[in-house]
Amino acid sequence: MTTTQPSNHWSLQPSAARGTLREAIQACNERGLYFAARWAAEALNGLPAPEDDNQTTRSRAAKLSDGQRYTSPYAEELCLDLCSEPTNVPLPEHDTYLMAKTFFDLKEFDRCASVLTGCTSSKSRFLRLYSKYLVGEKRREQDTREVLGPLDNGMAVNREIQEIDSELTECYNAGTLDSFCKYLYGSVLIKRQRKSLAVKVLVESVNQYPYNWSAWLDLGSCLPSYAAVMKMKPELPDSFMTTYFLSHVTLEHFNNQHEDGALWLEELMEAFPKSAYVKCERALALYHARDFPEAAKLFEDLIKENPHRLDSLDVYSNVLFVTE
Amino acid sequence: MTTTQPSNHWSLQPSAARGTLREAIQACNERGLYFAARWAAEALNGLPAPEDDNQTTRSRAAKLSDGQRYTSPYAEELCLDLCSEPTNVPLPEHDTYLMAKTFFDLKEFDRCASVLTGCTSSKSRFLRLYSKYLVGEKRREQDTREVLGPLDNGMAVNREIQEIDSELTECYNAGTLDSFCKYLYGSVLIKRQRKSLAVKVLVESVNQYPYNWSAWLDLGSCLPSYAAVMKMKPELPDSFMTTYFLSHVTLEHFNNQHEDGALWLEELMEAFPKSAYVKCERALALYHARDFPEAAKLFEDLIKENPHRLDSLDVYSNVLFVTE
Repeated sequence: MTTTQPSNHWSLQPSAARGTLREAIQACNERGLYFAARWAAEALNGLPAPEDDNQTTRSRAAKLSDGQRYTSPYAEELCLDLCSEPTNVPLPEHDTYLMAKTFFDLKEFDRCASVLTGCTSSKSRFLRLYSKYLVGEKRREQDTREVLGPLDNGMAVNREIQEIDSELTECYNAGTLDSFCKYLYGSVLIKRQRKSLAVKVLVESVNQYPYNWSAWLDLGSCLPSYAAVMKMKPELPDSFMTTYFLSHVTLEHFNNQHEDGALWLEELMEAFPKSAYVKCERALALYHARDFPEAAKLFEDLIKENPHRLDSLDVYSNVLFVTE
Repeated sequence: MTTTQPSNHWSLQPSAARGTLREAIQACNERGLYFAARWAAEALNGLPAPEDDNQTTRSRAAKLSDGQRYTSPYAEELCLDLCSEPTNVPLPEHDTYLMAKTFFDLKEFDRCASVLTGCTSSKSRFLRLYSKYLVGEKRREQDTREVLGPLDNGMAVNREIQEIDSELTECYNAGTLDSFCKYLYGSVLIKRQRKSLAVKVLVESVNQYPYNWSAWLDLGSCLPSYAAVMKMKPELPDSFMTTYFLSHVTLEHFNNQHEDGALWLEELMEAFPKSAYVKCERALALYHARDFPEAAKLFEDLIKENPHRLDSLDVYSNVLFVTE
């Protein structure tokens, strides 16, 4: 396990990656997955500038006439809201989805879930169940505050989870879950302490659609050892997302393996030279490797370039404390 | 002023209205105007069911081949995110906008405003200045809490407003503001107690693009008398939005004119028979006309059909108190 492990054999075509990540921002956004959308947006903006691969306002790899758009092989899976009038979902349901999403954006989760009852598309199902989940989380937080005081978080449970679990289990067994619903199912399974099934479902999710970063984060949280990560590696898709995942999981959970982590970060840095996320991960890697002065330098760069980015600044403050 | 006033002479084509309102949801959403998006979505879902005008999954009025979409005459004004690769905005700026919007959705307003610096499209400008405005509001709330205690709200000021005002004034005088930026300019002018200029700018905004409900709400808040509303009426666009506006402003600010209000609501009810918003306004109108039993009935219906809708429930509780 100490020999450095090359990641999968993807080679980056920036123009295709750009199209895929733009699609991912939209797909995640349409499902209320704001963190995953932000992550995809940071990756998109970490790619080399379009000039670098001879592009100006249009990608060359995907030659498009006016009004068309790049579509990845995942387009059907995503049921993106490309047109105001989608072809594959009945119009009244689509309008209901649009309304539900505006409720979601205003955090009216119970209203969102309620109007989506009876809608059949995968996207509507995801938004309904995810809203239900968030209703449960909100109530759980209230219960926790009321019963136990603000700091004791562990006791109250999300009372919606059982129902969500039943529905997702049934659909999973019937083979009707799309990648996003599988992600949600995986999250629910984790909450219910069924980690090995969660891993199975989440691996399916990231293979079905690799660009939902939230699914990868949940997957990373259930792996018990670095050996388990390595054993799972051949099952992961051949995509830069796998490299992001390996690098993240190593740094976050198994930082004694920071040499492998550094190698993956190297690959990512080449493909996403402008990425604040990658730079931040590199700073974290240096911190774990106890190279505090270099870590401090990178953090300083990062803050100069992204003055309002708050991620991992707690580590920077540790670094400063140690190097003072 | 007591004779009932018919509104403008629009006649509703449900299929066109549907396309226009779907577009409005997206246009408002892309600018972070969640309330206006929700309002448009409620109006959309208040239209007669597509079957009623011989439509199933596609509108007849706008015959579209697969993959195309309905576009209203406002499409250019809106610079909607139709394609992942827009034709009229340079790609790097578009990707920056996409990233900024993900920051906005996570309420990282200062980060959003900061990355949009230098972007030139109207949509980016709106999102940058609106984020700045929200940064100022957040800080104002903090200041208010810290200095004056939670209840005294009037003293602290939004410290970003002056800069936003300068930029918008300059662009307004140069004639380069789109309808959404004019809406923002109008809001800022109201905060700065320059109501007559605000009215001028907001009337321009709703004529340039009538489907941003937030602009109408602000316009409604600056009119000193019902006579002023009537005087302005010929300047308003020939759209169902004007009727919504007249009905709202009458009910909200000049409810002694409830006869006119009732007439407009009648028109809206015909055009948007399933609208929860219209039903709610009717209940409010009955309340102002002191017909409490009828108001109570309508509120009950409303709650049955929309169990999680919270708007105006305070009025319902008054009604119940009075009728008990």
